[in-house]
Amino acid sequence: MSFSRAASVLTALLALSGLHADEGMWTFDNLPLAKIQAKYGFAPDAKWLEHVRLASLNFGGASGSFISKDGLVVTNHHVGRGWVQSVSGPGAKDYIKLGFLAKTRAEEIKIPGLVIRTLMAMENVSDKVQAAVKPGMDAKAATEARQLAFEALRTDLEKRSTGLEVRAVTLYQGGEYWLYTSKAHKDVRLVMAPEMQAAMFGGDFDNFTYPRHSLDMTFFRVYENDKPYQPLHHLAWASSPLNAGDLTFVVGHPGRTQRQETFAQMKYQRDVGFPVRIATSEARKKALYEYGKQSAEHERQVRTAITNVENGLKATYGYWAGLKDAEAFAELERKEQELRAKVAKDSKLQAEAGQSWAKIEEALKQQKPLAKDASLLNTRGSVQLMRALSLVRLIEESAKPAAQRMKGYQKDEDLAKAKASLERPVRVSENPAMDTFLLVRNLEELKAELAPEHPFRKALLDGKEPAEVAKSLLEGTKMADPALVKQLIEGGVSALAACSDPAVVAARKISPLLVALNAKLEAIQVVISEHAGRIAKARFAVYGKSLYPDATGTLRLSFGPVAGVPGLGTQIQPFTTFHGLFDRALGWGPTVENGAWAMGPRWNERKATLNLETPFNFSHKVDIIGGNSGSPVVNTKAEFVGVIFDGNITMLPGNFYYDEKVNRGGRSIPRRRNPRQVKDLP
Amino acid sequence: MSFSRAASVLTALLALSGLHADEGMWTFDNLPLAKIQAKYGFAPDAKWLEHVRLASLNFGGASGSFISKDGLVVTNHHVGRGWVQSVSGPGAKDYIKLGFLAKTRAEEIKIPGLVIRTLMAMENVSDKVQAAVKPGMDAKAATEARQLAFEALRTDLEKRSTGLEVRAVTLYQGGEYWLYTSKAHKDVRLVMAPEMQAAMFGGDFDNFTYPRHSLDMTFFRVYENDKPYQPLHHLAWASSPLNAGDLTFVVGHPGRTQRQETFAQMKYQRDVGFPVRIATSEARKKALYEYGKQSAEHERQVRTAITNVENGLKATYGYWAGLKDAEAFAELERKEQELRAKVAKDSKLQAEAGQSWAKIEEALKQQKPLAKDASLLNTRGSVQLMRALSLVRLIEESAKPAAQRMKGYQKDEDLAKAKASLERPVRVSENPAMDTFLLVRNLEELKAELAPEHPFRKALLDGKEPAEVAKSLLEGTKMADPALVKQLIEGGVSALAACSDPAVVAARKISPLLVALNAKLEAIQVVISEHAGRIAKARFAVYGKSLYPDATGTLRLSFGPVAGVPGLGTQIQPFTTFHGLFDRALGWGPTVENGAWAMGPRWNERKATLNLETPFNFSHKVDIIGGNSGSPVVNTKAEFVGVIFDGNITMLPGNFYYDEKVNRGGRSIPRRRNPRQVKDLP
Repeated sequence: MSFSRAASVLTALLALSGLHADEGMWTFDNLPLAKIQAKYGFAPDAKWLEHVRLASLNFGGASGSFISKDGLVVTNHHVGRGWVQSVSGPGAKDYIKLGFLAKTRAEEIKIPGLVIRTLMAMENVSDKVQAAVKPGMDAKAATEARQLAFEALRTDLEKRSTGLEVRAVTLYQGGEYWLYTSKAHKDVRLVMAPEMQAAMFGGDFDNFTYPRHSLDMTFFRVYENDKPYQPLHHLAWASSPLNAGDLTFVVGHPGRTQRQETFAQMKYQRDVGFPVRIATSEARKKALYEYGKQSAEHERQVRTAITNVENGLKATYGYWAGLKDAEAFAELERKEQELRAKVAKDSKLQAEAGQSWAKIEEALKQQKPLAKDASLLNTRGSVQLMRALSLVRLIEESAKPAAQRMKGYQKDEDLAKAKASLERPVRVSENPAMDTFLLVRNLEELKAELAPEHPFRKALLDGKEPAEVAKSLLEGTKMADPALVKQLIEGGVSALAACSDPAVVAARKISPLLVALNAKLEAIQVVISEHAGRIAKARFAVYGKSLYPDATGTLRLSFGPVAGVPGLGTQIQPFTTFHGLFDRALGWGPTVENGAWAMGPRWNERKATLNLETPFNFSHKVDIIGGNSGSPVVNTKAEFVGVIFDGNITMLPGNFYYDEKVNRGGRSIPRRRNPRQVKDLP
Repeated sequence: MSFSRAASVLTALLALSGLHADEGMWTFDNLPLAKIQAKYGFAPDAKWLEHVRLASLNFGGASGSFISKDGLVVTNHHVGRGWVQSVSGPGAKDYIKLGFLAKTRAEEIKIPGLVIRTLMAMENVSDKVQAAVKPGMDAKAATEARQLAFEALRTDLEKRSTGLEVRAVTLYQGGEYWLYTSKAHKDVRLVMAPEMQAAMFGGDFDNFTYPRHSLDMTFFRVYENDKPYQPLHHLAWASSPLNAGDLTFVVGHPGRTQRQETFAQMKYQRDVGFPVRIATSEARKKALYEYGKQSAEHERQVRTAITNVENGLKATYGYWAGLKDAEAFAELERKEQELRAKVAKDSKLQAEAGQSWAKIEEALKQQKPLAKDASLLNTRGSVQLMRALSLVRLIEESAKPAAQRMKGYQKDEDLAKAKASLERPVRVSENPAMDTFLLVRNLEELKAELAPEHPFRKALLDGKEPAEVAKSLLEGTKMADPALVKQLIEGGVSALAACSDPAVVAARKISPLLVALNAKLEAIQVVISEHAGRIAKARFAVYGKSLYPDATGTLRLSFGPVAGVPGLGTQIQPFTTFHGLFDRALGWGPTVENGAWAMGPRWNERKATLNLETPFNFSHKVDIIGGNSGSPVVNTKAEFVGVIFDGNITMLPGNFYYDEKVNRGGRSIPRRRNPRQVKDLP
């Protein structure tokens, strides 16, 4: 517990009660303009909002913006990284390692597959959708009627919108139905990517950290008819410097929040969900480290896997910490009690949702004893056993009529996807030793955690030792061979039954247990979904649009001032400079932790020409979450002042609630503190 | 809760069990040399130890060292600050604000009153002291016999040690008795003090913080017969650069730790002691802020008081955080259970101390209901009411025979001290409005917290409103006038009884209640002290010198490697550089928080001549606490590499236990990473 956290105990209740001016990922049709005006003496008008909306871009799970009249686009390096990788090659073409800069438009590299979108229009069709519900329909019939009407409206609008895409958007968990019309840009070219070490200085260590010194940005350009696209709107470079206290706005696509979950669900996550997930990940991390220590080659094999598991653990600990904050947790409970009291006063709402909190709590009680089994039975230890299980699942489900299939296998495209995934070549054949090692560890964990008579333990170990089982199971398996897998898929149920591959034999034994477990979990989930929906509708009936909807990957506006961050028992400065980059690099040296804090080579080469006082990253109090990566940050003049690339670790509980004391976004893009005229970008 | 704390959950039990190689503030006669050798491949020999001991200095509550053959001394600026102040004046002589540098020896400024000491010898006289206990003596008689023998031995040695001072030192709460012989240096002169803004960059915000950029050091010189003193030993400047992982040693005088308190005592602190203290301080802080907001002049009046209360709160929250760490707390309980089990197995120890844990727990149960009263009744709100209470106390206690007096008034010198304190002029007359404002807030708190029939509330408010009571109590009081106070002291009990000063009238009413409360608290404390002593003896009987004694302000050696610090969800670099100083100053700007992060003017003036890559502060894993300020840090060659000036906030729980994961000291003194010959210091 850091000092700053403790110091705020006495103000926490005050700070958390009610809605803060800086909380919320608001939709453009429902901004708390009066509150912004009252607090900051400024509120955006319709023209301002249209300008930033039309300059913003959806990167499919992330965000970006137009920053020149010639279609120049900025987003994060970590958003564009996969696309940069896709046009990279070995040696001088290793644009991830070396970076890339197109010196002329002709050098800009077309990126096959990359599509980004501008949100052109939004239409509220709630009344039309609700009108589809006729008197006398039961809940199920009403839901189906709404879905049919919604899809019909969408298709109709799309037909009338030449060259545009229309997406059906549900907000407030069904409180509102909207049609969002987007223009898709399909010719996107790479303009600039910094070298990886500059883009991701500090590596995973500094992920979710501030102060920060990473140049996490990439430039693309949109083309149309082989010419630079001329967007209707683009963000101008800021004409004046940004200072602490200045109001900023973030325009982007936050992906998903769970702030409307019930108190019981959050308690379950705190006491069961996260601890189980963490124990599993820590066990995997430990096994990977042990394997890696065996040789330099083993270390190379597990490096990426370790980074992935540690990255996931860091985020999970962050989410978990939010739920373990006693004051915040008490406030979540208080808010729920407030809603329940309001629902109880309205007989119609009470009849619909009054029992829903208890129903969810009861469902979670049933889920609790299954949590550990579910976690242990995911055989993440062995890639080959995992493939065998997927294969068995696919073949068995394919043999059933669609309606009887397990979730995730019901549509034909689900089956096609699962098939494609299995037929893709895997590299496990390169390191079967690792596969065996991890399976042994996994089986040891299972042996330690489950009683001898537990059906999973019996099915997998049956009294034998983990090492022995793993060896017989993986020695001789051909699960890494796409040809065998393809052949089995084509042969269907009978080929599967006849197959003597040891991993398949084991998978056939475990599969029914997994199916049964899954069925139980799914039945519980159905109850939770049903009642979460009822609560959401009741909440919308009570609070209406005075609240913002949970994030859904659609365009939102967040706002808040540039501010320092409490941490380490002090306040962290709101801006970092290039001095800070050199301080951190020199303080560690270039070799520690595989060079996590080594300077990007170009910084060192050109140090003499850098003005080290140039502001680098900054922190501001804004309500953001995953999906906001790459969002433009603008000032009150709707000018571009930066790009969201991360939040501090104490932001992660934002998944469940917003705490303005500690929630901070960060941004990159160096820009000068002293005002000077910046010419239009190319 | 920071990520790093959460991430370590799974390793915490492992890390906390048993004694770590880097834990401990060890006495020079009992160093864990084998453990140091095993872990670091190096252990100091007798010559090494004698060298660093004789180069070290006791600053009376802090530490320092000789760093030249001509008696040059280094300690922290915050250790020397009061002394620098004492020879400062207005304008150009404001050496705190402007700094000071003697360009020649003639310019060095003699500091009246400053005495620093070298520990010349240590003698274990435990056997001789214990021999004073004769068969048949009861516990009380034995204690007295030991004390008499100890003092006789001390006096005898001092007589034989011409020009030296001998101090009686009790270690292990009575497990060992030692005589420490010191040479006192009484002619100490100021050589160099940096400007305050460089010495204390970041102000109280950055106190207990790392990364840090403060030049917290001052140079003095010891003289003898008006010539620079030639110490037998001084520390040479390091001949090679310090690097992450390098072993360091700290030679200094840690003041006090409470690691041997019982689990019940720590639990009491966690659940009652700290929360009550924090509530009181937070209320005072709030009142001070409110008063300060009334005008610029009020703001000026409360500035120092606010700094003091915030500084205290920061430390208190730090200590408290340590006790709220569930894993660490469980380990404290486990350790106590281990000791109790060993005691229970030994019938003699069991008879002596077996019940002591329960006795202390019982005493704390009695103390608990008194804690809030004791806190509310400290009338810190009003300086004048506080003086009236001290006056009543002094006069009443003076009238009693010494043996019947309250603790703190028993010796004649206690009375003289209390008298001198009261007769010193106070400045409250300048701002009686503040005195009244704070008393009103104090009475409001009392009214809110205590029932109407509570004797304290009756005595102070008696049904009236706080504002009314404060006004009548302080309007017309002359308690700020030393002449009146002196007159009352001289007039004794009868003058006091006749006095109609409203603050004195109020104090007479409250005083008996305070005396009664105090008597109860003292009786409880006697029980706790008695049984804490029994437990300490039992612990020494069980573990002997395999443990280090609690800090007692005597010379100790701590050790550990240079290392980064977990924090903010990442790892903080082990070294800071001047780049970091500029980064933090620029990131805040020069005016925020009254210029807390403004650059020291000389840094800015001479920026062009600074090598910004010069390492500035560093962090290392060493077990230190208050009193270690100014301690020299040496490398394995016993060369000087820095000066302890602070620990991070997560070090504060070190009062109760050592946690190597997060406990870090820091140091100042810029020195180059690249080795170069450093000539002897002047």
